[in-house]
Amino acid sequence: MEVSFLGAAKEVGRSAILLEGRKRILMDCGIKIVGQGEEYPLLEDRQIRSLDMAVISHAHLDHSCYTPALFARGYKGKAWMTKPTRDLVQLLLSDYLRIEKATHAYTEKDLGQMLKNVQVMEYERPQQNVTLFDSGHILGSAMTLVEDSGHRILYTADLNTRETRLLDGAKMGLQADTLIIESTYGSKADQHLSSKEIYASLVREVKETLDHHGFVIIPTFAIGRGQEILFTLENFLRSKLLPPTPVYIEGMIKKSLKIYRHNAIYLKDEVKRRILTSDDDPFKSTFYNIPSRKDRSDVFENDAAIIVTTSGMLNGGPVLFYLKKLGGDANSKVILVGYQSEGTRGRELLEGAKELDIDGEKVEIKMKVAQAKFSAHSDHKELTEFVKSIKGLKRVFIQHGEASKCEEFAEELGRKMKHVEVIAPNLGETIKI
Amino acid sequence: MEVSFLGAAKEVGRSAILLEGRKRILMDCGIKIVGQGEEYPLLEDRQIRSLDMAVISHAHLDHSCYTPALFARGYKGKAWMTKPTRDLVQLLLSDYLRIEKATHAYTEKDLGQMLKNVQVMEYERPQQNVTLFDSGHILGSAMTLVEDSGHRILYTADLNTRETRLLDGAKMGLQADTLIIESTYGSKADQHLSSKEIYASLVREVKETLDHHGFVIIPTFAIGRGQEILFTLENFLRSKLLPPTPVYIEGMIKKSLKIYRHNAIYLKDEVKRRILTSDDDPFKSTFYNIPSRKDRSDVFENDAAIIVTTSGMLNGGPVLFYLKKLGGDANSKVILVGYQSEGTRGRELLEGAKELDIDGEKVEIKMKVAQAKFSAHSDHKELTEFVKSIKGLKRVFIQHGEASKCEEFAEELGRKMKHVEVIAPNLGETIKI
Repeated sequence: MEVSFLGAAKEVGRSAILLEGRKRILMDCGIKIVGQGEEYPLLEDRQIRSLDMAVISHAHLDHSCYTPALFARGYKGKAWMTKPTRDLVQLLLSDYLRIEKATHAYTEKDLGQMLKNVQVMEYERPQQNVTLFDSGHILGSAMTLVEDSGHRILYTADLNTRETRLLDGAKMGLQADTLIIESTYGSKADQHLSSKEIYASLVREVKETLDHHGFVIIPTFAIGRGQEILFTLENFLRSKLLPPTPVYIEGMIKKSLKIYRHNAIYLKDEVKRRILTSDDDPFKSTFYNIPSRKDRSDVFENDAAIIVTTSGMLNGGPVLFYLKKLGGDANSKVILVGYQSEGTRGRELLEGAKELDIDGEKVEIKMKVAQAKFSAHSDHKELTEFVKSIKGLKRVFIQHGEASKCEEFAEELGRKMKHVEVIAPNLGETIKI
Repeated sequence: MEVSFLGAAKEVGRSAILLEGRKRILMDCGIKIVGQGEEYPLLEDRQIRSLDMAVISHAHLDHSCYTPALFARGYKGKAWMTKPTRDLVQLLLSDYLRIEKATHAYTEKDLGQMLKNVQVMEYERPQQNVTLFDSGHILGSAMTLVEDSGHRILYTADLNTRETRLLDGAKMGLQADTLIIESTYGSKADQHLSSKEIYASLVREVKETLDHHGFVIIPTFAIGRGQEILFTLENFLRSKLLPPTPVYIEGMIKKSLKIYRHNAIYLKDEVKRRILTSDDDPFKSTFYNIPSRKDRSDVFENDAAIIVTTSGMLNGGPVLFYLKKLGGDANSKVILVGYQSEGTRGRELLEGAKELDIDGEKVEIKMKVAQAKFSAHSDHKELTEFVKSIKGLKRVFIQHGEASKCEEFAEELGRKMKHVEVIAPNLGETIKI
């Protein structure tokens, strides 16, 4: 059979892998955002029309966002995914279509068509020749195992083997001859701090500012990171490691928090237990607040507050309001909790900018800037351990990473696992197995 | 070692069984309500002072209510019980102390003393030489297994082997040489309808009245039965077998419903799953209502409504208000869902009374009276199956039933299980094993 890398090969974005054996299965169908434009998977109409299945690993746009375009372009099958992925896809893709752009890859109607054709799958319950396993990345995220033509092909999509506040780590020790693995942090130099250290750095930075009666802004992605941050704060507020302080929840984080709650059955046992013994339900924390007035003046009636808000790289969203309001306040602080791409305001802040351009306005930055490096991806060592845990492995394809990361991870793995063929395929490459 | 039956021997009420081996363990410590008076376990002060443990099976007054008196009378140990039992005991015993009576067995202060000395136990986690197992009767209800002097003594307390809307059935197949079992429905003639038939009879009776735009009153015990009724109604409303109708929740049922929710981890998996995928949370049913005005006039602004209210035998509680209001309405109906003792208004209704005396007022009864026989106790056949499931059994003590039920069940069991000694002990009897 054949494996074609139609996106996310030596890049991050537009994940799309086509398997052609007895069946034609597309695994993921995302977009890549490049400046103001977008890039799509290298899919031809005839390929789309001949597909038997499209399996979506999780809701992030680089894995899911192009799926409605399949339907617009003649796909007649189903979109297979977990229930939480469906709920999050609905939220994220509706939001995507609302963003003002020159063009979108499809219309509201196509999205509706896709949502009507979602086929929900449970983890570890085979349907046809496909089985999903928890990948630990965000709520509902899945690895895809395809059994076809005597092969067992496992696609990790985005992988986190580490337990987080909300999720169990990815399922280890599966059986597969062919592994397609991500490499976001595939370089040997990519070594995450321990969870304990990450939590400690966040709480230290927050506490310092609260002790000085300042406001803390935590810009974050809405899905996954936002919930991890909220639960971490809630934990430290509840255990009194942080002084009692209201946490304001802004932007899409509110809606996605609801989806997390509605799908709590997919969260780790400790969270489920806390919901079921509801004295202690972390979703109902009394520390959580929604700004009640349109001008958010109620937030600033507090002595101090923590604001968890989109967007994670300061490209848009309510965080811009808070930056304008608090940028000049040396007692306040912005804590960046995720990767900041080149050209984003987040990166500018990290590089020491004393002024930001927001909606044509020059905003002076006197507030402190700090970092707490959360990650929803495994680092080099964890990725390697994951690969080693796979039984019966013959070949590994490395993708979903900058070219240098993919190549370095491939080289490292090749050296460590002599009997396994390791390849970092190029974009558009088709490989026979 | 010795087993003493200090209450609930050939009677229902004041459950209290004393085990004296290497340790002295009291299992249950309830009261028996007799007319306006109370009877207590046959405990002497010296026995109380020498106790090592007091283990409470569940929150119902006939099993728990005398426990604070132990502390008032010099007990220095802990009160061992599950967490839900503690929560329900707190609610029920506070309520018990509020009822106007000539005397109570103890004071508010003694209750506080007991609550401070509760030692929470989880099911199937041995502490000292005691292990609790789910008995399926109400939230948190437990069987007690004591290992002492080479014996394994299992006390069922109140037993329901049948799965209900909320609970798994009692744990079967345990190992014990000595079994102390209840006999509420121990007579061969005691044969419950199937759950399906019981639910069907309730829904049929409710539907008939709703179809005629009448009001349905369902008087019920607050703990256990009340929740089962609510969940049954919710199920039929959701599945549209009943027309959309508000369900008003009255009396202590509201508070105990909260305790059920706070302890949902102890409910059966299906309920937990519905809470965790909260679109479908049965505790948040939109059909549930609390009367919003003090005079309850909002209830009667509906075309039809279902009122689930205490008390189960019509001795007191909000049900009396509703009887006065609706008693004369031939379109309305009261559905009795539990056992109705001699001398209660519930029994009067069952026997066809056309008039009830409520607070000195003659209330004419034109409303319909129906019955749906729910039970939280196993019937004869189920009790027998439970006994047969026990491994290594040598002797059975039958208690917690009217004398005739205990004797009949003992005789039946003795005939069926030739190699097992079966005894229905008398009140106050001590038996060496």
